[in-house]
Order: sequence, then structure tokens, then C-alpha cells
Amino acid sequence: MLAETLAAIRPADPHAMAEAQAYQDRLTKPRGSLGQLEEIAVRLAGAAGVTPPPMPEPAALAIFAGDHGVHARGVTPWPQEVTVQMVANFLAGGAVANAFAAQAGVSVTVVDVGVAADLPDGPGLVKRKIGYGTDDMSKGPAMSVDQAVRALETGIGVARDLVASGARCLITGDMGIANTTASAALIAVFAGRDPAEVTGRGTGIDDEMYQHKVDVVRDALRTNGLSGSLISPSEALRALAAVGGFEHAAIAGLILGGAAARVPVILDGVIAGAAALVAAALDPAALDHCVAGHRSAEPGHAVALDHLGLRPLVDLELRLGEGSGGLLAHPVICAAVRVMHDVATFDSAGVTEKPV
Amino acid sequence: MLAETLAAIRPADPHAMAEAQAYQDRLTKPRGSLGQLEEIAVRLAGAAGVTPPPMPEPAALAIFAGDHGVHARGVTPWPQEVTVQMVANFLAGGAVANAFAAQAGVSVTVVDVGVAADLPDGPGLVKRKIGYGTDDMSKGPAMSVDQAVRALETGIGVARDLVASGARCLITGDMGIANTTASAALIAVFAGRDPAEVTGRGTGIDDEMYQHKVDVVRDALRTNGLSGSLISPSEALRALAAVGGFEHAAIAGLILGGAAARVPVILDGVIAGAAALVAAALDPAALDHCVAGHRSAEPGHAVALDHLGLRPLVDLELRLGEGSGGLLAHPVICAAVRVMHDVATFDSAGVTEKPV
Repeated sequence: MLAETLAAIRPADPHAMAEAQAYQDRLTKPRGSLGQLEEIAVRLAGAAGVTPPPMPEPAALAIFAGDHGVHARGVTPWPQEVTVQMVANFLAGGAVANAFAAQAGVSVTVVDVGVAADLPDGPGLVKRKIGYGTDDMSKGPAMSVDQAVRALETGIGVARDLVASGARCLITGDMGIANTTASAALIAVFAGRDPAEVTGRGTGIDDEMYQHKVDVVRDALRTNGLSGSLISPSEALRALAAVGGFEHAAIAGLILGGAAARVPVILDGVIAGAAALVAAALDPAALDHCVAGHRSAEPGHAVALDHLGLRPLVDLELRLGEGSGGLLAHPVICAAVRVMHDVATFDSAGVTEKPV
Repeated sequence: MLAETLAAIRPADPHAMAEAQAYQDRLTKPRGSLGQLEEIAVRLAGAAGVTPPPMPEPAALAIFAGDHGVHARGVTPWPQEVTVQMVANFLAGGAVANAFAAQAGVSVTVVDVGVAADLPDGPGLVKRKIGYGTDDMSKGPAMSVDQAVRALETGIGVARDLVASGARCLITGDMGIANTTASAALIAVFAGRDPAEVTGRGTGIDDEMYQHKVDVVRDALRTNGLSGSLISPSEALRALAAVGGFEHAAIAGLILGGAAARVPVILDGVIAGAAALVAAALDPAALDHCVAGHRSAEPGHAVALDHLGLRPLVDLELRLGEGSGGLLAHPVICAAVRVMHDVATFDSAGVTEKPV
């Protein structure tokens, strides 16, 4: 399934992009006056291979939940059971992601890829558990390469199912106590940075715990023989297995699955940024189908976006995850595309164009 | 009407703000993890005087259109008739503001406060013409103080009418070829800056025209005896009349009218920023009811926001006007408020709180 998906991904269509840019210039607005929104519309035209690109509605948020063996190292003040408690909160509609999704008219699907507890069946929950949390990456690989591939393929399958049910835009979401630690390790490896540059305070830790978190990320890289320098695509799966989380792998799969279906994927924050580095290492063309929803407060997120060459749309100092930043970006992206569908041209509206 | 409106404006309620902040900390998310959205929710609680603040829906965009005598000085390559052509485009639903409003579910009202041509009657157009464009501010006052007051009261009346028809949020919009020139003059006067610091390239001008535009703004300040230093509230009306546009005055009125009705006002770009400086000079408490929708590419806008102490929500290099930036911010503001209505508390959801 992974190989088939990678084979199906096409890069952006330069003709559709040129056509989109030329069309933008005929619309009744000063040239370039929509700034970054014009880039987004052109980008989505390239991804879809058609101008104007289809409206990215309806959109579906997939929240992948998993636990992390590295939690045992004391990298966060939150107890591990908060992961399963928050899954229940998502399913009851009580989390921030639910409020944002309701506001934006986006559906919410929660996928258990590795929560460290058994979850009851319930509407909105997709059970695809690969393990009861990963192993402690500071002592050895977080998961096997086989598990990493299964988690990737779980994400691909979720993308396929959501697109088959009508989604025309996918939004990445995550839940997993300690997953900013795994994100920092992935970003250090895939972007070739020192752990101190890419490790952040997650949902709020003090200076002492922060120093310890950086040391734990460093331990994980050393234990797994990952040098923190640029890695080749063939090493991507091993690196993902060594220091990733089940949700990182699944989100990378969601990105690949969306790209293969030519449905745009809105990336949320630092967890999605780490996952996108993995997806891009497997196939750089997958990135042409991604939009960076926002820039989170985590330092590793800016590094990941920079490495990926993506400009975030929204920058509101969020550090929540769950898909919250991607959900805020969705109406902005819809507005950018709607301009291409609805706005009159200078000719059609009888508006005098500025002399060039 | 102006005096009555100013008398009705109340500053933010500090009790409601404290209650909103305390409530944010009980919701199932790490403290502060919604960044600037938490500030917005607290701000709107203060403005409304109640926690949670009411949802800012439905929202209404009011686009005030007017022409500018200073257009004769050659400050823009666009012909003046584009103002009336764009009014027709708004009424036909073909402009960017219409596309963004449709995306956000916001109504659009166009108000002629000073277009230099007679407009046919039509649905969606409110005819409140105060003059056929302002006079050339570089030769004398753009309008009389009486006209400025009438334009302000027009904006107040539009705010009252929209609130009476059910609007629970107002968004400022503008159309007027050459109105960034008047905005630069207003910002120079009200924020006490040199014209060169606050004059921008509007919808796109070359270096030569830009230098000329700065000189014209300087002429306008000198001719009208405005020193470009901080002015007292009592001088605000005279300064508005001297270098403002009818749409600037009407937007200032919309802000005051919204504030008096305790309905939040989302400010669009540089024209709204200039108008908000006027409103704040008349009553600083009006600002407590405003949210800066975005930061435009115009340098004067950043100066105005800084002077007003407002942080913009969206920063996408827009330089269009029409209300476009305010419309993009509306879903973000709704999301911020919806969190206060929908999200479970740690207690109610049975989620373990981080040990403090």
C-alpha cells in the first residue's frame, strides 16, 4: 500500500499554476493585493492540476492518538492517562478541536494508533492500535520498522476512507502526551539540527525539565545511531521507527494518502511538521499538496517549516495541537480558492484596469 | 447623535475580563495554549461585560464608499471612476469582499457617503451621500466640520441599523480611489509621525509617484496647519475634516456606534486604522470594543495599530481594503469565543490537570 501510494503521487502541475497566476491578475483587484492568499490559490491549482482548483470543502480533521514510551523519562508534567482522557473528550465533543471544527464546519475523526489503554467502541473512533504506546526511544528504537510501515499505511487508509466519504481537504490532528519530545527528535534528524535548537517547552515545562528534555532527545539520537545530520530517503523509515511516534507515522501516511488522491492536506503544528519531514523524505512531491496551517510556538516547528519551504498562514502563538491551527487556517484557504471561483474579471465587471 | 453615542460608550468591564481569564484556565487545554485567541476572548468578554461573551455572529460588513479631491494631484494610477465601478461590482457580488463574505457567512452593505457620481437605487446600497467626493486636502480642508460630523453620524446610524437587524459583530470596509493618501495624512496627524513614515504604495505605485504622494501628504498637513504632532481630542474633528475622507469619518462613526451598542467591531486595514485613531481621539473607550482584523502591507497601518495598542490577528500581506482582512479574521474571532461556550472544563470532562 505504501509503495502503491508513493507511485501515485504527482508533483504540482506547472501549467495549472501559470494559468492560476495569470487568472489572478485578471480579477477585479490590484495585482498581488491578496498577498499570501494568491500564492495559496496558485499552489492548490498546481496540486489539483486544474484552474481554478476545486473548493477545499468539505474538510475532515483526523486526530491520531498515541502514547510514548519516552514519557517514562519525565519529559512532561502531564500524566500519560491524559491521552486517553482527551480521546474521550474529543469523542464527547468537549475539546478545543471540536469547537474549532464546529465553527469551520469540519468533521472530526479520532484514530487510536497507539494509546496505552483499551478504548471502548464509539461513534467517531477508528480503532487501529499498533501498540500500547511506543517503546522508550532513549533506550532503543521506539518501534520496529514493520510497525512504522503499518502506522504509515493506517494514515494512508484513513486518507482514502475520508476522501471516499467526500472529503476534499484533510486536516492533520494529534494527541499524545510527550509527543513534542518525539517531534523534536524527528526534526533534529530530518532537518539536521542540534536537539537544543528544535526542542521546545511543549504544553508548558520549567527550565530544569526543559534541559532534561533536550538531554533525553540527545540520548535518543545517540542510542539509535542517528547523527542529527541530513539523512537519505532510504534511511527515513528507520529514523521514523527509531524516534517517532505512532501518530507521527500515521500523519505522514495521511499526507501521502491525501497527495496521492490530489486532495490538499492542511498541516497543523509541530507534530505535523515532523511528520511532513518524514513524508517529504519518502517523496518530496507530497509537499506540493500540503499547506502549512499555522506556526506554533514550538521552536522546532519553525525549523521544520523552513526546511520544508512552507510558509505558515496563521501565527497566533498556539501550542495546543489537536489540529487546532489547521482548523483556523481552513476558512482562510477556502477564501483564497473562492476568489478564483467567484470574483469578476476587469472585463466582465466593466472595471477600468490600472494602466501598466 | 454624536454626543449621545459618545455618552453611551462604556469601557471594558475588568470583572468580566478577570472572570474570562480564570475560566480559560479551567478549560481542557494547557494554560495559555491558545495564545492570542485567549486574549481576544478575554477582550470581548470585557467589551460585552459578560463571560462568556456572546458569539459575534451574525456579522455584517459595511463598505463605505467615497471619492477624494486629492485624486487630482496624481497620487494613484487608478482613475477616479473605479470607485463607482467597484460599488457596482460589490452590488453585483463580484468583488473579493463578496467572495470572502460569502465564505464567512457575513452580510454586505454598501454605503455611498461620497462617491463622485450619482448611483442608481439597488438592493444592498444605502445612499447617504454627503458630497461628490471631498475637496483637495492639499489646497484646503477636504470637508467642512459640519460634513465630518454628518459622515460620522452616518456611520453611527449604519451601526444602529445593522445591530437592530440582528448583527452581533460589525466589520469595517471601504472603497475610495486615493483613500490611502488621506489615511496617511490622518495617521501622520493622529499618531504624530512624519508623512514619509506612514505613507505607503497603496494598490501599487512606482518610486516617483510614491515620492510625490509623500509630498502631497506633507502639503496637506502644512496647508491645513496640522503639525503632525499629537493632537488633543478637541482638535480631532477639525483634523478629520481637514485631511480625512467621507469613508474615514463614517467608519469612525461605525466604530463609535458599535461600541455604544456593545457589539464588537472588527477593523480591516489602513483605512480602518486611520478611522480608529479618530474614534479613539473622540473616546478612547471605543477601542475596547475593537479587534484589529489584520495587518496590511501599508506601513501606516502598523503605525496606527501600534499607536492604538492593538495586535492584528491575521498577517498575510494583503493590501486590498474593502473589508477583506476583517472578513478573514471573523472566523478566527468566532473560534476564540466559541471555545468559551463549547469546551469542557477539567472537572466536567474528567481530565487530569497538570500539577502546578
